[in-house]
Order: sequence, then C-alpha cells, then structure tokens
Amino acid sequence: MPQTTATPEAHETASRDLEPMFAPRSIAVVGASRRPGSVGYAVMRNLIYGGYTGVVYPVNPKAKSILSLRCVRDLQSIDDEVDLGVIVTPAPTIEGLVCQGADHGIKHFVIISAGFKEVGGEGVRREKSLKALAEERGLSLVGPNCLGIINTSPEIQMNATFATHMPRKGTLGLISQSGALCTAVLDYAQGRGIGFSRFVSFGNKIDVTEIDLLRSLAHDPQTRVILMYVEDISGGQPFIDACHEITRGDNPKPILAIKTGRTSEGAAAAASHTGSLAGSDEVYDAVFSQAGVIRVESVGELFDYAEVFVDPVLPAGRGTAIVTNAGGPGIMATDACIRYGLKIARFQDYTTKSLRFQMPSTGSWKNPVDVIGDAKHDRYRAALDAVTADENVHQIAVIVTPQMMTDVENIAQVIAETKGFCNKPIIGVLMGQVDMLPAVSVLQQHGVPTFTFPEDAMRALSAKARFAEWARRPISKYRRFDVDDQAVETLFAGELKEGRNQLVELQALEAMRHYGFPTVPYALAKTADEAVRVAGEVGYPVVMKISGPKILHKTDVGGVRLNLSSGEDVHEAFEGMIASVMKHMGDEVEIWGVLIQKMMEKGKEIILGMTRDPRFGSLLMFGLGGIYTEALRDVAFRLAPIRENVAAEMVKDIRSYRLLEGVRGEPPSDMKAVAECLLRLSQLVTDHPGIQELDINPLIVYPRGKGAVVADARIILKES
Amino acid sequence: MPQTTATPEAHETASRDLEPMFAPRSIAVVGASRRPGSVGYAVMRNLIYGGYTGVVYPVNPKAKSILSLRCVRDLQSIDDEVDLGVIVTPAPTIEGLVCQGADHGIKHFVIISAGFKEVGGEGVRREKSLKALAEERGLSLVGPNCLGIINTSPEIQMNATFATHMPRKGTLGLISQSGALCTAVLDYAQGRGIGFSRFVSFGNKIDVTEIDLLRSLAHDPQTRVILMYVEDISGGQPFIDACHEITRGDNPKPILAIKTGRTSEGAAAAASHTGSLAGSDEVYDAVFSQAGVIRVESVGELFDYAEVFVDPVLPAGRGTAIVTNAGGPGIMATDACIRYGLKIARFQDYTTKSLRFQMPSTGSWKNPVDVIGDAKHDRYRAALDAVTADENVHQIAVIVTPQMMTDVENIAQVIAETKGFCNKPIIGVLMGQVDMLPAVSVLQQHGVPTFTFPEDAMRALSAKARFAEWARRPISKYRRFDVDDQAVETLFAGELKEGRNQLVELQALEAMRHYGFPTVPYALAKTADEAVRVAGEVGYPVVMKISGPKILHKTDVGGVRLNLSSGEDVHEAFEGMIASVMKHMGDEVEIWGVLIQKMMEKGKEIILGMTRDPRFGSLLMFGLGGIYTEALRDVAFRLAPIRENVAAEMVKDIRSYRLLEGVRGEPPSDMKAVAECLLRLSQLVTDHPGIQELDINPLIVYPRGKGAVVADARIILKES
Repeated sequence: MPQTTATPEAHETASRDLEPMFAPRSIAVVGASRRPGSVGYAVMRNLIYGGYTGVVYPVNPKAKSILSLRCVRDLQSIDDEVDLGVIVTPAPTIEGLVCQGADHGIKHFVIISAGFKEVGGEGVRREKSLKALAEERGLSLVGPNCLGIINTSPEIQMNATFATHMPRKGTLGLISQSGALCTAVLDYAQGRGIGFSRFVSFGNKIDVTEIDLLRSLAHDPQTRVILMYVEDISGGQPFIDACHEITRGDNPKPILAIKTGRTSEGAAAAASHTGSLAGSDEVYDAVFSQAGVIRVESVGELFDYAEVFVDPVLPAGRGTAIVTNAGGPGIMATDACIRYGLKIARFQDYTTKSLRFQMPSTGSWKNPVDVIGDAKHDRYRAALDAVTADENVHQIAVIVTPQMMTDVENIAQVIAETKGFCNKPIIGVLMGQVDMLPAVSVLQQHGVPTFTFPEDAMRALSAKARFAEWARRPISKYRRFDVDDQAVETLFAGELKEGRNQLVELQALEAMRHYGFPTVPYALAKTADEAVRVAGEVGYPVVMKISGPKILHKTDVGGVRLNLSSGEDVHEAFEGMIASVMKHMGDEVEIWGVLIQKMMEKGKEIILGMTRDPRFGSLLMFGLGGIYTEALRDVAFRLAPIRENVAAEMVKDIRSYRLLEGVRGEPPSDMKAVAECLLRLSQLVTDHPGIQELDINPLIVYPRGKGAVVADARIILKES
Repeated sequence: MPQTTATPEAHETASRDLEPMFAPRSIAVVGASRRPGSVGYAVMRNLIYGGYTGVVYPVNPKAKSILSLRCVRDLQSIDDEVDLGVIVTPAPTIEGLVCQGADHGIKHFVIISAGFKEVGGEGVRREKSLKALAEERGLSLVGPNCLGIINTSPEIQMNATFATHMPRKGTLGLISQSGALCTAVLDYAQGRGIGFSRFVSFGNKIDVTEIDLLRSLAHDPQTRVILMYVEDISGGQPFIDACHEITRGDNPKPILAIKTGRTSEGAAAAASHTGSLAGSDEVYDAVFSQAGVIRVESVGELFDYAEVFVDPVLPAGRGTAIVTNAGGPGIMATDACIRYGLKIARFQDYTTKSLRFQMPSTGSWKNPVDVIGDAKHDRYRAALDAVTADENVHQIAVIVTPQMMTDVENIAQVIAETKGFCNKPIIGVLMGQVDMLPAVSVLQQHGVPTFTFPEDAMRALSAKARFAEWARRPISKYRRFDVDDQAVETLFAGELKEGRNQLVELQALEAMRHYGFPTVPYALAKTADEAVRVAGEVGYPVVMKISGPKILHKTDVGGVRLNLSSGEDVHEAFEGMIASVMKHMGDEVEIWGVLIQKMMEKGKEIILGMTRDPRFGSLLMFGLGGIYTEALRDVAFRLAPIRENVAAEMVKDIRSYRLLEGVRGEPPSDMKAVAECLLRLSQLVTDHPGIQELDINPLIVYPRGKGAVVADARIILKES
C-alpha cells in the first residue's frame, strides 16, 4: 500500500555562509588605482565615500596612497586578517592573486575583472582553472566579469562596486547576472527613489551562484523582497528547494525574477515526445512555478511588483475594493482587477448602508465606490473607513484623479492614515504627474505603494494576492509508494547487459507494474494453447502483440492483432502472427512469445512522460493524447520529484483541462488516478537515474472513481 | 458564377463637418463665471489665457465682466454670428439654452454640464429630449457630462475645457469618453512632455460620437496619431468603415484605443451557438481587428505606442537591428523582439564585415551588435552607419547603459543624426534615469522615441511594424456572388406567413442552396417508392430524416435513420418512419415527406454561424466543431459584411488552426472552400436582415481542392 511519509526534502543543498563576504571587517582592493575613471579608483571611491565601516587595504605596488589611504605592495604585506578580497586587475593575473590571497588566509573574493568565458578561447581555460582553484582551496568567489557587491546595512555600508551611484538603503535585495543591467537599475532606482538592502552582480558565477545568493538573502533581516535577473539557473531541484524554503514558512520572502535568453540545448537529440516538447522557456516556467518564484517580463514590471511587495502585509484573499473619484478610471480598474485574477469584493450589507448614508446621491455605494469628482479628503475618509472594515475586502485601491476641487495632498494623508490602522494592503493610484507630486511624496513617506494608472496597480496587487495564497497553503509532502524498486533495477541491468537500451513494451509494462501503476491485464504466451489460456484469464476481447528483443516495429511485420473474441480466433492469430513475423524478419529472429492484453474500454487518452534535461534533470510531462499533445502542444511540465499537490496542479495546467472536467454531458475524468500515476512516475524516475526517457502513451483514464490504466509505455535507458 | 466586384463600401456614413466646432471664429460661454474654482470661470480662464484667437462672449446676466471681457445678458443679445456655444449651467436649464442658441443661429454646442443619463431617472428623460432637439434643429452637440474640447493649432489655440492644464502643441489627437481620464492624461502628459493637436472629452455622446470625431481628426492635418478611450462604441460597421478609411490609403493615421467595461448585453437571450459564444469583449476585439485599430491595455502602453507612432516613418518589414553596449540588455531586447513578433534581422555579408572590422574583438558583429561597455559615441556611430545601410534591417533599437566611460549625451547626438538621414524607424533605449536625462532631452528635441527599458520599446516597435503591414496591404474587396436572393425572400416570407420563424432543416438547406453553398445532395420524398428513386439519384449510402413544419426534434420521434445502403432498406425505413412519427405525434401531424440525403464521407467538422448583436449588427462566427467550439470556446468573430481577405484571416484566427493545416500526416483542409462559405454567409445575412440567427453545423471540410459541404443548418427569423 502507498505510504505518505514526511521524508526530508529530496535534494537538500548545504547552505554556504556568505556573511563574511557581505559583512567583512576588512577588505583588500587588489588593483586599487589613483586614476579617476579607472575601475580600481571607482571601487576605492565607492568604499570610502560610501562610508564603509571596516578597514580598506588598497593593494598597489606603485602608488603610495589612494584617497589618503596608505597602499600596500601586495597581499602578503597586509598585517591583518582580511575577510574579503576585491580584484580588478587584468584577467591573466587573477589566478595568481587569488592564490596569494588564499595563502594569506582570505576566504572570500569578488572578481570584477572581465576576460573569462565571455571572450572565449583562452578565457574559457582561465575560468576553468580559477574554478578549480576555488574548489581546491575552499574559497567563495563572486564573479568574474561583474560589477561587484553592495550591502547598505548601517553597520556595514559597503559599496564594493564600480557603479556611479550608491543606492539608498531599503528592503529590496537584488541579484543580477548582468552587470550592465545593474548600472541601469541603480540609475533608474535613484530617479524613482527605490532603496536596496543588498545588491549583487554575480557575472559568470563560476563559484557563488544565484542559489547561494538567494539563501544568503533569505537570512538577511534587512531584505524583505528578493529581485533576480538571470539568463540561466544553475540547477533545477536545488533551485526549487532553495526558493521553496524562502517563499514559505513564518517569514516568507517573495522572489521576483526576470529570466531572459532562450536556448534550445534542452531539446537537443530528444527521441521521446516529452523530450521534443520541452522547450527551455517552458521548463523555466515550470521550475519557477514549483519554486514559488514570480516571473515578470520587464524591469518596469519588476519594480511595480516590488512597490507592493515592500509592504509586508499580505492580503487574506482576492477580494478587492476600489474607491475612486471618477467613473472611467473605476471601470479601467475593475477590468484590470478581473483580467489579472482578482475579485471585485461584494460588500457586506452594513458597508453598503454606511456608504449609501455618507456618499452623495449621484455616487456609487457599490464596488467600485464612486465618491464623485467633487470629493475632498473627508469623503475619501468616510469611504475608506467603511470599506476597510468590510470582511469581504482583502485589499484596497484608492484612485484619485486631479479634478478642480480635489485636495490631493490631504487625500494622500487620509490614505496614509488608513494604512496605519488597517491590516490590509492599500495602494494609491494617483492619476497624473505634475499636480500629483505632493500626494506621491506623502504616500512614499508612509510606505504606501503608488501607481500612476490602475492597470499596473491591479497587476501588482494580483501578484501579491497569489503570493499570499502560495505562502499560506499547507506544505505538501513528497509521497513515497511502497514499490519493488529492486525488480526494476534487475530488469534494467539485464537489458543493458544484453546491449539493449530501448525496452520493448512487455518490459516497460513490467517496470510500470513493479511501481504499482495500474496496467492493462497482460501476459506472455509462448504457444498457441497458452495464448488461449491466457486470453481466457485476462478476459475477452483481447489484443495480441508479438514480443521479442529486436522487434520494435510490430505492426510492420504483422505482429499486432486487435479485438479477438474467441479462443479459436486467438489460436489462429498466434500461429499466423509467428509465421508472418518469421517471414518478414527471417527464421532466426528471436521471439519471446506473444503478449496477450485485455482490450480496454474506451476512455480519455492521456500522455505522461519524462525526459532528462541536461541542465535541470528529470522533467515530467502531462498532456492529453493525440492532437492535443502533438499538434496543439498543450502540455504541462514539472521537475521530478514532485510534491503531492504539484501533481494535482499539473493536471489543471493544460489549456484543455475542461475536457477532463467533462463536457457535453460526459462525467468528469478520474483526475485523482492521473495524479497518482504522476507521483508514481516521479518516484520511478527519481529512484532510477538510469532512465533516460519514458513515455506512457496512452494512459487511459475513466470517469471519476473508475481509475486509469497504462495501455502502452516505452522506456529508454542511458547507454552504459 | 461568383463575381468579384469593386462595389463601394457597403455601409458608407456621411461625414459630418465639425470644423466650425474646432475652429470657431466666436464662442459664447453660457454660464461664464467670475468665481475662481467654478467651472464657468475655468472655461473662461482657459480660453483667454490659452490665447484663443477668436472672440469670446461670456453669457452671464448678473456679472458685468469676467476676466476683463464685457458680459452679455443672454444669447440673443450677442450682436455677432456665434460659431460655438459652450454651456456649463445646471442640467435642467440646458435644453432651453440650446433652443435659444439655435434660434440665434448657433449650430455647434459643447455641453459640459453633468446631470443627464449618468444620474438616471429625470436625467435620462432630459438626455432624450436634448437629443431629439439636436436632431430636429440639425445641431452638432458634444457632451453632455464632459470636460470640453481643445484645439492647439496656432491659428485657433482654443482650450474650451475646465481642465487645469493647457496641453502643449503636438501631433496626437485624443478623444475620450471619460472626462476624468482626460484630466489625468493632461497632468501626466505635462510631466512626460507629450503634446496634442486636438483633445476631446465627449461624455455621454448624445449627438457627436467617436465615429464623427475620428473622421474629423482624420481630416486635421496637425493630427498624426489618434488616441481613443471608449467604454462602448456607437455602431459596428460604420465604426469599421470610418477606421478602415483613416488607417489605410496614402496618408494612413494609426488609431490606438483603450476599450474598457465589459457588458453581457450581447449575449442576452441567444438561442444559437453563435449567440451564446459572442461575449462583448471578443466582439470588440473582432471589430478593432477589422477596423485596423490597435487595442492597448493601459494608459502607459497607449503613450508608449504613441511615442513611436508620432514619428511618421513606417518600417518596410519586421527585421530589427539591436545595437547595445551591454550583453544582458541585448538579450532582454532580443527576447522581447521575438515575443512581440518582430524578427532579429540577419545582416548582409557586407554589414558583418564592416562591423567585424570596426568593433573590438570582444564585441559582437552579429545582431544584436555589442559595441561593449567602453564604447563612446564614435563606436556607436560606426555601428549605426553599418546597420542602417543594411537592407534586411527595417528598424533599429539603440540601447545605452550608463557605464563609466559612456558619453551618453554624445551618443544621443549620434542617434539623432542617424535618424536625420535614415528612413527607418530608430529608437533609443536609455537605461536609467538620472544619468540619462541629458541624453533623453537630446533625443526628444530631435523627435527620436525614447524608452527606459527594452521590453516596452520592442512592444511599441512591433505594433508599428504590424500597423505598417496593415496600411500597406492591398485593399480587399467585398465579393458579391450571383445568387437567387428572391427565392430566399419568398421562402422566408412564406414561413413567416405560416407563423413559423424557426426553419426546419429542409428549408434551411434550400436557402443555403439558393446562395450557392455546396450542400449535401438531398431531395424530399413523399412516398416510399419515391424515396427509393431519390436515394438512387443522390447515391447510396443515404440518411433519411422526417420533414414537417412542426417536427423539430426528429430523433425523439424515430424520424432519423442513418447509413441505408439498398432500395429495400430505404423502402422499409420510409414506412417505419412515418408510422413511428404518427405514433409519437398523432395521426394529424403534418408530414411533408422524408428528406433523403447522401451520407457524406468523413471530413473535418466546422461550425459557421451568425447572430445579430444588439449593438453591432450581424456577427459572423467560425470554429471547429464539437468540443473545440463548445468546451474550448475556440472561435473567431467578425462583423458582416466581410471583405475577401477577412474571411481568410478569420479561419487562421482560432487557436486550433493547426488542425486544419493537417497534422499527423493528414492533408491540409480546403481552407479556400471554407473562406468562400464565410463570404456567402456574409452576403446571405447582409441581404436578409430578417435572419435573426443562423448556424451551419456542421460544415464538412475535405482536403485541399476537395471542397466543403453543408451537412445541416438552422435558421431563425425575426418574428414579424
């Protein structure tokens, strides 16, 4: 019987302690320079003028001092423990310098210099060698080819970058694979008044990866929201596990990610359905979804979302109240609310009565609440008092358009005060720019997210509501079924020993059966008489298929017969089939016998599959059979192993899901049975890394309560 | 035989001359006031301080002067011709004042006052009455319940609104159903430096509609791009025709629209598939698509698009070059380029050689061109010279990130100069805010669109490329087939006379046949012997269906038999069917006979349909049959009549279109035959407005060249 066990996370990765890197007591800057405009000068300037609270040692054999700091000739000459080495010298010198630093006891380095993998040729060799050095000596190394790192915490105040802006202090932690994006973001953030806790450009990430940095930001009390720009991620399951931990639990931190760059490496040389359908971008979507990471499309969207996430109050649901002084924008907000999956809250009677009493007769006391163009702050206050108290309201958007009599600053004050006592997200949509500036600054001072137009506001609120649901729901377990993994191991080993890596149907079904999948009743018959006996056991009508180690294309050699209803037919079919196969493939062909299967009743045909993605590992696929998968590419992916709830979600993820719910009077399909098959598949491919690809095609699914049955399967093993 | 004729537009609407309204020589402001803060004061202030070049007559019986202008007691007292009356007095006074004005010869009015339909009750009555007055007296009336109108043309300089901002002069014409949105946009535009040609808040549009305003903006030489905010539109085909004219031809003007507000009025009481599937928002999508209107989702997006459309240069294709000084943003731009349907241009050999020669070795001379972080303006110039000369490049995005040595202002100058000589759209993506300000202002001075991040830039460029394709392609005709419309008219009249508005299959097929649809061979047999003869004529196997005016549910009364292969079977079936129907429905039931149809070969089943939308008129629908239409709601809509190319587009519009192209080795379906059926359907429902709803279900489609066949149809007539 299946067991539900609270096993520890399947892929636990040890968390690296990067605190000495982000809170060093002393920093050596190798390649520090007196020359303004050079990177070695910029780093020194940022550290000194940025108010770094520790000691800086500029390493420069030629200069006496830089920015009044006495230089040291080399790392060995520093008569102090150094926590962090920042290196900006040309690429060919780096390995030697890191070596020297390690000899001097430095464990953490930021390598800003470029000239590694990104330039190809010699650079690739250099990068490999540096990576090996870091591993060998147990060093932590950020970069190379990056902008550097920043920690705005008052105890540290470290800006170890060559950026031209020092970001202001805030609660956003940003990590980025692109240094140029960092410079652009710092400039943009300065203009928009956005503050950061930590800021890391990690470049070629030969050692410290985004996963290490995510775990480190998770432990930083200053960081409330994590922003990430990546072009690739460094592993599937470890990434999922790290993000899952960060975004769940008592103190969940949202992770907002931009992922760019499409690659087809994942789809290379795929022999299975699953393999050929798994484009890299769909895989990233699957990984982010399992990880609880919110994927955004642009930098603008990233900071729109950050605006609402900085406020730690999470909404209890999707019910949204809109208070507006203009009808048109109220409609825009309502549309956007629905488009992005929020709900227009249905007010309680008391709220409606209260609003009807206090609003002018031409206003609206339904949601959206229209306080009318001549509303001043007092009417906004009355409306906000009423809607914030309503239990059906989980978040509030307050729209202000600059009408002639609108006292925008006072209204902003009312919104800020409402936020003070109300434990629900509240945002201001201040429609305009010039006239709205004083109001914007009031809201910013009080930490109320502000937007110029309703659509961006609603999209961001919706992301927060969905994150709240993610953070709130019970943590689902990895379910382990009681299976015969040893039998499967033996089966695979036997095949590989015979030089076969593509399993024929019989063996694939055997493997499925050992893992508790419901399979079509079947048995192998070696003689015509045995065939008749077996057919009687599995039950008529039956299907007969030739079985032999080399017979892959059974139909072509007359090796398949369908819908046989009597012993006589079976007997005759057996003889005929053997003769036909031998005629086509020669008398010497190895025949194990004939596979007799019960011919299954019609049901919905589904495909389950797995392919090994070179970057992420075991990728599970689910889709409806036939045209839905092949022509419409309507499939869902997840990385194995999957938690119990993930299997259920995956089924709902396809566009054609409604067909499984039952249309045109059909009963709904047995989704629970499908989800269980997905979990068993997840266990099978996780237990047996030797499986390269696998397709269950079709899995026949019956109406709810009637189960599902594996009708055919293929398994391809890694060649040993 | 079908004919292709160049008939004039099916629904030509007369264009109203609104020029006296936008360029009046004199304006009377009824309700002008001395009191700052009042609407009557604000309108006066905006006219006078805005520099209106004509004469203003403040109408106020109590005040002597307003802003130094001598007041007149009432409209009759003005001893001058008045071109425009602007009225701001309370709603109950309006009708009388308009009447007075009309008596005095005023033909154009802007009614700013609220208190009409939007307040319900008495307001609704007031609005109807005012509308009737305008029609009766031949007046043009903007409003009521609006902000007013603006024309920034130097010869006029009229700001007849109560807004607090006078927009700067520019080439955007904006019309909006929401006054509050206008105030917000004016404030926002002021901050972002956006200029307008004309600006119209049209409120409740009881007389002048968005269609009149669109035509008027089309004729305004100052207006280059039209922006529109609507909550509903005032008619389907007239809107499509107006927009089609504006967005095509020698001087096409793009129309960018925000449409908000969802309503279900269209779906009310629909008895057909088509009717029940036509949600109002899908219909708007269809209308906008036929009209060539670009629908946007938010005000931010609206102005992003406006930014690129203000530059009148249209691209010759989708090939896009990206020049960047940073890899990450280059990847972001590439992703966005592909996501929004643009293409990364493949450079000609000469371009690549030129770039290879001039770019540093660590750069990239492929597209995106990476000029590397240390690039100054000279390297940008070399790269831009090379890519702009390339024939495969149709538009160029130049990305600048603020690196230490980046001379942003000089680079902006280079971009501006490149725009001067290059007849391709070119935009600047200046990533940042503070450091980028000088560069932004250089580009703005030279009319180069600027963006902060690549995604918004690419989305806007893509909209422009698609608009260019729309504007360029040949104008498709309305095709007219030679049909027997008189026979259909007679058929419908006969049915209605008998009190029947729901046509049985036989009659629906007759109507189809008169309009040249390919139908299943069929004939009505009145006796068993005749049935056998007819079956021989249409060809075996046949289907038999009982036919009679009241027999709608044929299967339930034993009135359908399938797959009959011999005369004997047909004879027997006929007798049995008549007996069964009489048994179920009584001996008195009227039976016309039995419909004998050839049983068609299997093909793809398709649904064509039409429903009359209360707002838009004849709405055509196309979809695949069965679950695709019913469960997946994968259908396309267009308003009839449709042009030839629209029929072809409509077929490609559904998500499952690939299934018609042929999957799993199937041949492609005969899409040409389907398109022709859509055109015939368009003609049928346009010729016969008495058709309320129509479903052709299924239309069986065969492989390319093999045609399509109407297998069943139903027609519901409007009850007379």
